Amino acid sequence: MIMDNPLDLLLNPHGIVFFGANNAVTTMGTTQLLDIICSGFPKDHLFPVHPVLDQVLGLKAYKSVNDISASETIDFAFIVVSAKHVPGILDDCGKRGVKRAVVVSAGFREMGNTDLNDQLLAVTKKHGIRFLGPNCIGFYNRNVSWVKPEDREKCRINTTWIPIFLKNGGTSIASQSGTFACHIFITCEKMGMGINKTVSVGNEASIDLVDCLEYFEQDPDTRVIGLYIEEIKRGRKFMEVVSRIVKKKPVVAMYIGGTEAGARAGKSHTGAMAGNDKVFDAMAKQVGIIRAINMEELLDYCHALDTCPLPHGDRLCILTNAGGPGANMSDAADRVGLKVPEFSQEFQDKLREKLGIPTAQVRNIVDLTFDLDLEKMYRTIPRTILRSDEIDGMLVYGIYGINIFEILQDLAPNVKVPLEEFKGIQVPLLEHLAKLPRVMNKPVILVNLGGRDDTAAAFLQDRGFPVYEMPHRAVKAFWALNEYRKILSRIEAREKSAG
Amino acid sequence: MIMDNPLDLLLNPHGIVFFGANNAVTTMGTTQLLDIICSGFPKDHLFPVHPVLDQVLGLKAYKSVNDISASETIDFAFIVVSAKHVPGILDDCGKRGVKRAVVVSAGFREMGNTDLNDQLLAVTKKHGIRFLGPNCIGFYNRNVSWVKPEDREKCRINTTWIPIFLKNGGTSIASQSGTFACHIFITCEKMGMGINKTVSVGNEASIDLVDCLEYFEQDPDTRVIGLYIEEIKRGRKFMEVVSRIVKKKPVVAMYIGGTEAGARAGKSHTGAMAGNDKVFDAMAKQVGIIRAINMEELLDYCHALDTCPLPHGDRLCILTNAGGPGANMSDAADRVGLKVPEFSQEFQDKLREKLGIPTAQVRNIVDLTFDLDLEKMYRTIPRTILRSDEIDGMLVYGIYGINIFEILQDLAPNVKVPLEEFKGIQVPLLEHLAKLPRVMNKPVILVNLGGRDDTAAAFLQDRGFPVYEMPHRAVKAFWALNEYRKILSRIEAREKSAG
Repeated sequence: MIMDNPLDLLLNPHGIVFFGANNAVTTMGTTQLLDIICSGFPKDHLFPVHPVLDQVLGLKAYKSVNDISASETIDFAFIVVSAKHVPGILDDCGKRGVKRAVVVSAGFREMGNTDLNDQLLAVTKKHGIRFLGPNCIGFYNRNVSWVKPEDREKCRINTTWIPIFLKNGGTSIASQSGTFACHIFITCEKMGMGINKTVSVGNEASIDLVDCLEYFEQDPDTRVIGLYIEEIKRGRKFMEVVSRIVKKKPVVAMYIGGTEAGARAGKSHTGAMAGNDKVFDAMAKQVGIIRAINMEELLDYCHALDTCPLPHGDRLCILTNAGGPGANMSDAADRVGLKVPEFSQEFQDKLREKLGIPTAQVRNIVDLTFDLDLEKMYRTIPRTILRSDEIDGMLVYGIYGINIFEILQDLAPNVKVPLEEFKGIQVPLLEHLAKLPRVMNKPVILVNLGGRDDTAAAFLQDRGFPVYEMPHRAVKAFWALNEYRKILSRIEAREKSAG
Repeated sequence: MIMDNPLDLLLNPHGIVFFGANNAVTTMGTTQLLDIICSGFPKDHLFPVHPVLDQVLGLKAYKSVNDISASETIDFAFIVVSAKHVPGILDDCGKRGVKRAVVVSAGFREMGNTDLNDQLLAVTKKHGIRFLGPNCIGFYNRNVSWVKPEDREKCRINTTWIPIFLKNGGTSIASQSGTFACHIFITCEKMGMGINKTVSVGNEASIDLVDCLEYFEQDPDTRVIGLYIEEIKRGRKFMEVVSRIVKKKPVVAMYIGGTEAGARAGKSHTGAMAGNDKVFDAMAKQVGIIRAINMEELLDYCHALDTCPLPHGDRLCILTNAGGPGANMSDAADRVGLKVPEFSQEFQDKLREKLGIPTAQVRNIVDLTFDLDLEKMYRTIPRTILRSDEIDGMLVYGIYGINIFEILQDLAPNVKVPLEEFKGIQVPLLEHLAKLPRVMNKPVILVNLGGRDDTAAAFLQDRGFPVYEMPHRAVKAFWALNEYRKILSRIEAREKSAG
């Protein structure tokens, strides 16, 4: 058990009583219960409560929480009903010994209903119930602590309404917007990105971002922390906790609310007054947060930090077989302050010798131009480059799967397209490439415009190798890796000088 | 015929002699000929030349261009052979009356082979041959001028090695990188973006970006022009031509070469010295170019300009059913100088009345929160908002297709998921929404994280309605629309004060 953190029991409940589901898969609550069922959570530990129905989604339904046999462990209530019923339900649950809850229902503080909010706080205080929400979407937990590691693929908990079950990953996200706790699964799936946990904190009436941070700090399955923030409530504590965490795990945060329009949005959304963008920026720099400006950056940075070894400096090699994307990456690197150093004459000679392609460029950008010898692009040149002490990481453009061949074969069935031959050559080379970053202990990121639709990109992603759809995204992902390296260096320097 | 522009015949040839294809679909040239065949270009107007083979990809092959019957029209040569053979081949072609060519072969100026370059220029000058390249990928033309409009779906010309045939669109791209003339098809397809033409100019030994601009200016199928630039050769002429074009058609340009690393990349790639980033920026502002910083922006801006009516101002409404993406868009709008104005009390009252959702927010952001009534999200509220004179355009988040229902049905086959019912309600509403921007004459852009994988997104895209995968991308697309409006206003003001 993780210290006294309220999220430990909340994210890993043994028995769930569910309020607000019926048999019509069009309501929010019903979809959420269905998702919990589809998660593989044991059905005999799921107890839907419904005033009328005997069965909900194939489960025995109860008229009230009091009707559930006293021998059943019920430590968690999930509530998606009209706001006005929530305090009463929580009172019943409290009497039954429930200690954790998720309140999805909206219509409390954010709507100006302070009386109802007070009731909610009073009843949960009375029973010692800690909860997420109100006005949240719940959570996703890919690694339930009481489930044996080998069974976790089949027994997760997803209380959100998005029934996408991503592969396992080290990223855990806490968010003041439900979207960032579930809609993002759609994007993560496209990126081949794994997720450990997501938590939607809603109005934070009981559990807030700081609680999430402290939980993720200790959670052995969390390697990278992502935050979506519209307002920070316990500012001093937040800074103290983040400062401590970033020594061990990177924290990436998207903050909305500093710009005029963003602030208004935040206010109407979670009922909070927003701070100033520049103040957040300064604070982020001070405590060592890597800041993301949009949803894409938040996920891109977390994904890179979860899948890549950290660079030892800011010097990039750009390896490509197409000029434009290479130039795009080089330009983007310059814009974010990363170096694409011209290689020493000695190293250029070495590369030229290994290449033997008259049209190739080796100054860095290394541009192989068109070449049939995959061995060079996938193995010989990457190995040579990563071994060099002139660079700290590499971005690659020009590795594509069999999609183009497949399209051609469909278009021209009478022509012999060497699909299988290509696959036979490519697959072992991809296997090799996928291991290279760990073997060489330097980050390598592939750009592939097809993303997960491309067979080579998907193959690499499935082996934990990051692939981004756009050149500038790969560059910014490397930027995030380098930022975390710099944060760690600053901490180290500070601790040294402190004694 | 379009004036005396060399691209008119080049992009619309009647007979093609092809050098550099065989029957092994692993070489560049073979793939390119196969793509031309798959384009639907008449096979009896295709003449591969090969020193040994009698047949190439099912076509009769000729030992030399001289062996082709004199009665055949051959106005175009496509050349993918070693650089040293190119001048001789062009000499033979010139004698045969060929007036246009594409030289894919690399190894001329960009490799320091000035002698060979001089030979190339001399022989083409002698015969009056105008050509693309060398060191280019050719072109894609979805609207061949001599093909009847109703047949163009089946008879296009794609000389690139990417066999993706996009839907028709108004965007034409000229590029100093081959990637931006073909690899981008992968991205365009994902975006549901149509393309009219792409032209890879390579080293610009004969035809350059300015020629492309002048051609696109007059081409009736071009509504938006995209440029990828590493170096501008005829600077004064470029500015003069662009200044003239932007009165009629927007020009979006990505320029790489101003940053230190970008300049080096550009140099090794097309053998050109690059200018300064700030100089380009100032020039772009002066002549009315909308600048894109990366590949994604280039395509995003062109797509929006091709599919949206222009806004009459910079005031955005953000309509959403999820707080986070709404706040993200609002924040992004602020960062690029767009307004998300708070609605007047009167208009807020009107919206609140139409909505009847207690948790909804109507100040702008308009946040419907969770609501089952699709009619409101797809029709009533958008219509009401677009009719208002308080806004100039709208971004929408929260319209998703049946994908989630499909996943649920697969996961829970025993549960009745209302797939067909939902479709039955959604499809007519989407049909209505797709027409709304034209009917109301205001731009509307949807954000859908699933992109083309989402059934609703694909449905809308197929009807010419723009859908972007990320909130900030939709905001920046609207920014580009507003930029073009401002460019047109400035021109109008200038002409008024001049006249």
